[in-house]
Amino acid sequence: TTVVRKNDADVVPEDKNKFIQVIRPLLVELIGTALFILIGMWGVCSGAGVLTAALAFGLALAVFAASFGHISGVHFNPAVTIGILIAGEIQALMAVLYIVMQLLGGIAAGGILRLLLTTSVYGQCKGGATLLAKYAVNETAVKGAVSYGADSVRIWQGILIEFIATFVLVTVILMVVLDTKSKTGLAPLLVGLTLAVNILAIGAYTGGSLNPARSLGPAIFAHQWDDHFVYWIGPIVGAIVAGFLYRTVWAHHDRRMFVKRTPAATASKA
Amino acid sequence: TTVVRKNDADVVPEDKNKFIQVIRPLLVELIGTALFILIGMWGVCSGAGVLTAALAFGLALAVFAASFGHISGVHFNPAVTIGILIAGEIQALMAVLYIVMQLLGGIAAGGILRLLLTTSVYGQCKGGATLLAKYAVNETAVKGAVSYGADSVRIWQGILIEFIATFVLVTVILMVVLDTKSKTGLAPLLVGLTLAVNILAIGAYTGGSLNPARSLGPAIFAHQWDDHFVYWIGPIVGAIVAGFLYRTVWAHHDRRMFVKRTPAATASKA
Amino acid sequence: TTVVRKNDADVVPEDKNKFIQVIRPLLVELIGTALFILIGMWGVCSGAGVLTAALAFGLALAVFAASFGHISGVHFNPAVTIGILIAGEIQALMAVLYIVMQLLGGIAAGGILRLLLTTSVYGQCKGGATLLAKYAVNETAVKGAVSYGADSVRIWQGILIEFIATFVLVTVILMVVLDTKSKTGLAPLLVGLTLAVNILAIGAYTGGSLNPARSLGPAIFAHQWDDHFVYWIGPIVGAIVAGFLYRTVWAHHDRRMFVKRTPAATASKA
Amino acid sequence: TTVVRKNDADVVPEDKNKFIQVIRPLLVELIGTALFILIGMWGVCSGAGVLTAALAFGLALAVFAASFGHISGVHFNPAVTIGILIAGEIQALMAVLYIVMQLLGGIAAGGILRLLLTTSVYGQCKGGATLLAKYAVNETAVKGAVSYGADSVRIWQGILIEFIATFVLVTVILMVVLDTKSKTGLAPLLVGLTLAVNILAIGAYTGGSLNPARSLGPAIFAHQWDDHFVYWIGPIVGAIVAGFLYRTVWAHHDRRMFVKRTPAATASKA
Repeated sequence: TTVVRKNDADVVPEDKNKFIQVIRPLLVELIGTALFILIGMWGVCSGAGVLTAALAFGLALAVFAASFGHISGVHFNPAVTIGILIAGEIQALMAVLYIVMQLLGGIAAGGILRLLLTTSVYGQCKGGATLLAKYAVNETAVKGAVSYGADSVRIWQGILIEFIATFVLVTVILMVVLDTKSKTGLAPLLVGLTLAVNILAIGAYTGGSLNPARSLGPAIFAHQWDDHFVYWIGPIVGAIVAGFLYRTVWAHHDRRMFVKRTPAATASKA
Repeated sequence: TTVVRKNDADVVPEDKNKFIQVIRPLLVELIGTALFILIGMWGVCSGAGVLTAALAFGLALAVFAASFGHISGVHFNPAVTIGILIAGEIQALMAVLYIVMQLLGGIAAGGILRLLLTTSVYGQCKGGATLLAKYAVNETAVKGAVSYGADSVRIWQGILIEFIATFVLVTVILMVVLDTKSKTGLAPLLVGLTLAVNILAIGAYTGGSLNPARSLGPAIFAHQWDDHFVYWIGPIVGAIVAGFLYRTVWAHHDRRMFVKRTPAATASKA
Repeated sequence: TTVVRKNDADVVPEDKNKFIQVIRPLLVELIGTALFILIGMWGVCSGAGVLTAALAFGLALAVFAASFGHISGVHFNPAVTIGILIAGEIQALMAVLYIVMQLLGGIAAGGILRLLLTTSVYGQCKGGATLLAKYAVNETAVKGAVSYGADSVRIWQGILIEFIATFVLVTVILMVVLDTKSKTGLAPLLVGLTLAVNILAIGAYTGGSLNPARSLGPAIFAHQWDDHFVYWIGPIVGAIVAGFLYRTVWAHHDRRMFVKRTPAATASKA
Repeated sequence: TTVVRKNDADVVPEDKNKFIQVIRPLLVELIGTALFILIGMWGVCSGAGVLTAALAFGLALAVFAASFGHISGVHFNPAVTIGILIAGEIQALMAVLYIVMQLLGGIAAGGILRLLLTTSVYGQCKGGATLLAKYAVNETAVKGAVSYGADSVRIWQGILIEFIATFVLVTVILMVVLDTKSKTGLAPLLVGLTLAVNILAIGAYTGGSLNPARSLGPAIFAHQWDDHFVYWIGPIVGAIVAGFLYRTVWAHHDRRMFVKRTPAATASKA
C-alpha cells in the first residue's frame, strides 16, 4: 500500500463528493505550497549558506510529498504541474486551478516571511528573493561606489541554468512517481533529494528557484524584480521539454505519446 | 511486517501484563526523551551551526522511532502527544503519563549536559537553552555596553514561528504514522527529517524547539527563562491545530471526526 | 516491482526493437552522464567546500539511478562499466559503447560548465577539474613566488587514493545492485551515498573523481592536464580489482567465477 | 528478501564449508573495518569539521552494512560484537575472532592513512586519533607557552560521553537488526545514521570514537596515547549495558533473557 495509492474516491462512496475530489487537493496545494516555500526561505534567510537552503527546500518537499501525495500529488510548483499535464496525468482545468493555488501559496509565504523576520535579517536576504549572482569588480570601482562588472551571471545563462535544473527535477518526478516501470515507494524522498541537489548545484549562480511560485512571493513583498522573468521562462520551458521527452522517449510503452492506452495497460498501472 | 506493527500485547498472552502495556512504554518515553534531547543539545553546544543541531535532533529522533516506535510510539514531545491525543490514538491518562515522562526526560538531559560539558562550552551555548535571537545594535551602543535594539525577534513572532514549525511536524506525524491511507514504513526516517528541516529553517530565529520538554531541561539548569513560555504556547497550540485539522480535513474517512468507526474501518487499520 | 526490474524487452513484443534495446540505454548514458557531472561540477565550483561537492555528485547519481536504472543501469562512469563487465552483467560491445557515451557526456558537461559559469568563477575552480592537492610551502618561497614543496600529494598517493575509493564504489554497486543475495530496492540511494561518502573522504586530497569521464571533460575545456592519468589508472584498476574480488570471493555462488550458471540459478536472479 | 536474509549456508549444500561459514565473514570484518575506518579518518583529516567526519563514518558504515550484512553482519567494532554476543546472536569463539579482525583492520587503516596523507596534513589531524578536547586558557598562559586549564574535558566525562553514545548505537543495532518485532529493511541506513548522529553530537568533546578499533589504529601510528583507555572503557561498558538492557527489557519475548527459545519462537525469527 505504500507504493501505489489509489485515490480516496475509488474506495468509499461517501467520499465521492466535490470536497474530496476538488477542494481538498486545492487546499493541499495552497497551504502546502505556502509552508514549503516559507520553510525554504527561512533556510535561505538564516544566512547559513546554500547547503542549508537546499536541504530546507528539499526535505520540506519530501515530507509533504509523503504526507499529502495521495491527496494532491504535492506539485507545489507550476512547472511541475505543467510537466504532469503534458504527461497526461492531470486534467487541464485542474492544472490551472493548481497553478493558481501555488502562486497564491507563494505569495502567502512571501508575506508571512516579511511578518516573521526582523527587518535587518529580511533585508540581508532580500526577502528570500531569487536573483542572478552579481560579482563586485573592485578593479573598476570608481569613487567609492561598488561596481558590478562584465563577470556577473548573464540573463541567458540564468535562464539556461534554471532550465536544466527544472528539466532534471521534472524528469525525475515523472520517472519515480508516474512511470509504470520505475515508480517507487521511495518517490517522496527521491523527489525531495532531487530538488535539494539542484538547489545545491545552482544556488550560488541563480539562487536556485526551479519554481515560479517560489520566486514570485518574495519578489512582491521585497520589491525584487530584477531578472524576475528568468524564473518563469527557465523552469516552465524546462518542464515542457522534460514532459515531451518523457512522453516520446523515456516512458514505458503504455505512457508513450500517440500510443492508445488499452484497458490492460491502464490496469497494469495500479 | 516493517510497515504495520501490532502491539506486543496482541500476540502473546504472557505479554498481556502491566509491564508490557504501561511501564515499558513509559520507560521508553523517559529514557528515550532524555537521550534524544541530550544528543541534540550536544550538537547545539558543539558550536558548529544550525545544520549540525538540526541533524543531531532529527536523526536521533529517526533512529529512536525506528527502534522503539512499536513500544511507545516515540513521541518524546508533549506537543506530539497532545496531537496524537486529539487524533484519538492514545488514551487521556496515558497521554498525561507520557508528558510527565517527557518533561522528566528533558530535565534529565539538561542535568547530564551540565555534568558532561566543560564550564566554558556550557556557558557559550547557554546550556543548550532555546532563546529568541537578539541582534546587537552597534549604532546604539552606549558607554561600551552592548545594546539589543528594536530589531530582535519579538515574542509574538517567536510564538508564531514555533507554532508553524510544530504544526508541520505534528501534521506530518499524523499523516505518515497514523493515517490509514498515507502511513508508510519510511515513517521513522520521515518524522526525523521533518524535525530536522524545521529546526534548520527556524533555528536561527527561535533556536528551533518545537518541544516544551526540550526547552524546559536546559532552562532549569542554565537559568535561562527569557521568553520561556514561547516554547510552551507555540508548540502546544501548533499541535492542537494540527490535530483538529487532521481530524476534520486531511484524515482518511475512517479517522475523520464525528465519524463512528465501524469494526470494518478499524480492521482496515491493521 | 521496485526491487527487481526486468528489461523492457522481456515484457512487451512491440518493444523488442533496436531503439529500446540499444539506442535508449546509450541515450541515457550520454545525457545522464552529462547532467550528472554538470550538477556535480556546479557544486564544486560554488566554492562551498567538499561536503557540497560530495552531496551534489552523490545525490544526483542516486536520483538518476532511481529514474533510469531500469533502462541503462545508470553507470555514468567507465570504471563502473568495467566492473560490471567483469561481473558478467553487460556484453563487451555494449560496454565499449557505454564508455564512449560516458566520455562524450563528460566532455559535454565540461563544455556546458564553461558556457554557463562566469569567467572568474570558472577560473577559481579551475573549470571543475580534479587535481592533486598542492600545499604552498611559505618557508621555501623565494622572491615572491609561491612554491609547492615536498608535502604535496604525490602521484602514487593520488593513484592509490582513487584506487581505494573506486574499489569501494564498484564493490558496493556489485553487491547492492547485482548480487543475488544482497541486492535491494534501496540500491539507488545506497549507490549515491557511496559516491558521496567517498568524495567526502578523499575530495580534499585528489578532488574525488573515481571516474575518468568526470575528470576528462573539465580537463579539456580548462586545459588542466596535471596528473590527469591518475584519474584513469586509479579508478580503472580499482574497478578491475573490485570486479574480480566480487567474482571470486563476495558473490553468491550463482555469480561466482568458474561456476557454470544453471538455468535454475539464472531463474533465481529474477 | 531484502528484509530477512538467511545465511548462505542454509541454501546451497556446496556452500556448507569452512570458507563460507568462517573465513569469508572474517575477511569482511578485516577488510571492511580497515576501509570503513580509513574513509572516516580521511574525513576527519580533511579538516572540514565534525559534520564531514560524522557523515564519512556513518555513511561508510551504512553502505558496507547493506553490501556485506548478509555475510558477516558488518560489526566493524569490538563494542558492537560484544553487544551482539550478549544478545546471543554470535558464538563466543567467533566473537573473539571478529574482534581480532576488527583490531587488525583498525591498525591497517592507521597505517594506510599514514602512507597516503602528506606529512603536514597527517600532523594537523594527529593521524586521525581520538583525543579529549583541550581548551587553551589564554589567561593563564605564562611566558609564551600555551596552557590548558581546568576547563578541558575530564577523563571521567570522556568515558561517560563515549559510554552514552555507544549505548545508543548498540541499542539501535539490536532493535533494528536483530529484534523480532522491530527489525527492518532500512536497518543498514538506520545503523549508519545512528553512528553519524552520535559522532555529530560528541565529536567536539571526545572525537567521537564509539569503537576501540577506530581509536587503536591511529594511536599506534601517530603515537597518540593520551587518555587512550577512555575509548576502550566507555564503548565496551556502553555495549555491555545496552546488551543486558535489551535482553531484559526491550527485547521481544522470544529474545528475552531466561526465556527458553522454543522452535516456534525461533521459526518466527525467519
